[in-house]
Amino acid sequence: MRKGRQSYEFNRMPRIVGSYTVAGPREGEGSFGPLYNLVLDDDHFGEKSYEAAEATMQCEAVKGAISSAGYEVTDIDAIIAGDLQNQITASSFSARQLDIPFLGVYGACSTFGEGLGLAGILFETGDFKKIAVATSSHFSSAERQYRFPLELGNQRTPTSQWTVTGAGCTVLADDGSNVALSGVTFGRVIDFGITDVNNMGAAMAPAAADTLMTHFKEFGVSPSDYDGIFTGDLGKYGSEVLRKLCIDGGYDLGDGYHDCGAMIYTEEQDTFQGGSGAGCNNLVFNAHLLKELHAGRLNNILLVPTGALLSRDSPLQGETIPAIAHAVVIKRIDYHEKTEILS
Amino acid sequence: MRKGRQSYEFNRMPRIVGSYTVAGPREGEGSFGPLYNLVLDDDHFGEKSYEAAEATMQCEAVKGAISSAGYEVTDIDAIIAGDLQNQITASSFSARQLDIPFLGVYGACSTFGEGLGLAGILFETGDFKKIAVATSSHFSSAERQYRFPLELGNQRTPTSQWTVTGAGCTVLADDGSNVALSGVTFGRVIDFGITDVNNMGAAMAPAAADTLMTHFKEFGVSPSDYDGIFTGDLGKYGSEVLRKLCIDGGYDLGDGYHDCGAMIYTEEQDTFQGGSGAGCNNLVFNAHLLKELHAGRLNNILLVPTGALLSRDSPLQGETIPAIAHAVVIKRIDYHEKTEILS
Repeated sequence: MRKGRQSYEFNRMPRIVGSYTVAGPREGEGSFGPLYNLVLDDDHFGEKSYEAAEATMQCEAVKGAISSAGYEVTDIDAIIAGDLQNQITASSFSARQLDIPFLGVYGACSTFGEGLGLAGILFETGDFKKIAVATSSHFSSAERQYRFPLELGNQRTPTSQWTVTGAGCTVLADDGSNVALSGVTFGRVIDFGITDVNNMGAAMAPAAADTLMTHFKEFGVSPSDYDGIFTGDLGKYGSEVLRKLCIDGGYDLGDGYHDCGAMIYTEEQDTFQGGSGAGCNNLVFNAHLLKELHAGRLNNILLVPTGALLSRDSPLQGETIPAIAHAVVIKRIDYHEKTEILS
Repeated sequence: MRKGRQSYEFNRMPRIVGSYTVAGPREGEGSFGPLYNLVLDDDHFGEKSYEAAEATMQCEAVKGAISSAGYEVTDIDAIIAGDLQNQITASSFSARQLDIPFLGVYGACSTFGEGLGLAGILFETGDFKKIAVATSSHFSSAERQYRFPLELGNQRTPTSQWTVTGAGCTVLADDGSNVALSGVTFGRVIDFGITDVNNMGAAMAPAAADTLMTHFKEFGVSPSDYDGIFTGDLGKYGSEVLRKLCIDGGYDLGDGYHDCGAMIYTEEQDTFQGGSGAGCNNLVFNAHLLKELHAGRLNNILLVPTGALLSRDSPLQGETIPAIAHAVVIKRIDYHEKTEILS
């Protein structure tokens, strides 16, 4: 049921039945280290390039998530996946090893939100029963694609974020768990004229604010209706900008608001603003938040993946940085709630 | 209604109510020159870079298609768009000028098929009423991103295709025309081990064959059930490979089979295998096939956009070229057919 131009509440509420995360060595030493399913000793993961390593990580995450749900790869109706590599090759190179209809999506670090939202729409038809949503990023493939060769040893600026080496996959099904995807607010592309590629939190905060405030209005809810609101990945500075923009718009995000990028590394890891990348909010969700939902320590959350829609070349051509954010509602439901809703 | 693991027949059959194409100078001299809505004199289109020109072309196509349907931009529920630029910046830079919820997709030259298929799924919920699907490509932005700087004047190989400079948009609505999107077969990622980046037709033909034969089986149809089957863009050589693969699989594509890449330029234009790019099958569909459908000279077609899922770097790392194809059914329906189907 549509709640507004950008928002949709899922009548069928697909359940989250499977999950798997593959994290890099630095992420393994971070805040959620013990919670990842697989932590790599070496971010080459036995491959000859970082790019191939990322594809293998994503494929392992997909197979692990499907297996964790008790399914076979051939049971899955569709995979929706994306990443930060040019032409999302980590995702397509992963998918060529999987016999699953493939839908490639791109929304930079918002990709996981776009994928979950689209999965919810596919379930809404009543005809899709099992869908996998996967994203990934890799520090070393991102650095040399977007910034500089690692060998140069360039200094980082104080507002920069650290691209997470990680891949995660969530498997949704029409039944089988009491944690459900219950709604989405799809974002618009917002550009506030930021040009500093080392300050993407500031570029993305206006898009996050736009989607969040649209979500609150269209769903008729307020920030306090959620146990937690988790953006990903504005970083520390960007999330403070978001708080201020929301207060200006009449919404206090309050104590329940956190940013996945700011959460994923410890203070000692010295990553400046925190993590970023299409794998960051995915890892935090699948390794940490989902477990909190299953355990009942969280009951309903709003996950708001945010993406900076630039390429390596666009800032060099004088372009500002457009951004987007998609918000998805994930909540615990009673096993018996579904039949009541559909009846 | 699902027809099989990869196929979906749309109960609601969204109607194609708007269309607009923006073509480059060479395309304007090609087979469908007089049919494009706007032909550029200069492929810079008043912008400082080819990349920015492509974004402006796509934005003009979207606004033109929405206008041709008699709608305002704010009437549109969602835009699904993609292109070949790294991080699909032509699409996101176009979308930042449009106040429309944005879903970025990537499937190389198959993107238009993925977008139409996903649009059909969104309509299937019954809650989306107007959706725009847009793709674009630009010869000059593609050459320097994937191959060599134009200034080098590199020679082209006989199996190479010419990236189309063009942007097109199709607007779908729940009513308002007698040409409808009635089904989709989503593809899987197929890799037959081709490594020659100048022979992408051969890399994509196995994916096209896989999707086509799956479509025939899952829908229970044969090639002769369609007035035409149009792949895009295998080129001349690739489409011959496809014919042979289908014959090996028990299906003769027959005289009704054509390839958009092989159709878009004239023999005199000397583009070797023909056109390619996310704009190619889009231009051929929106400028030519859609008009034939409206005029009743075609009644039902299968459009099969095909994509080579490589990046500039992946072949340099020794990777083979994975590919994908999505098939969409577009047909004339009686204005009264819809109510019967839904009743």
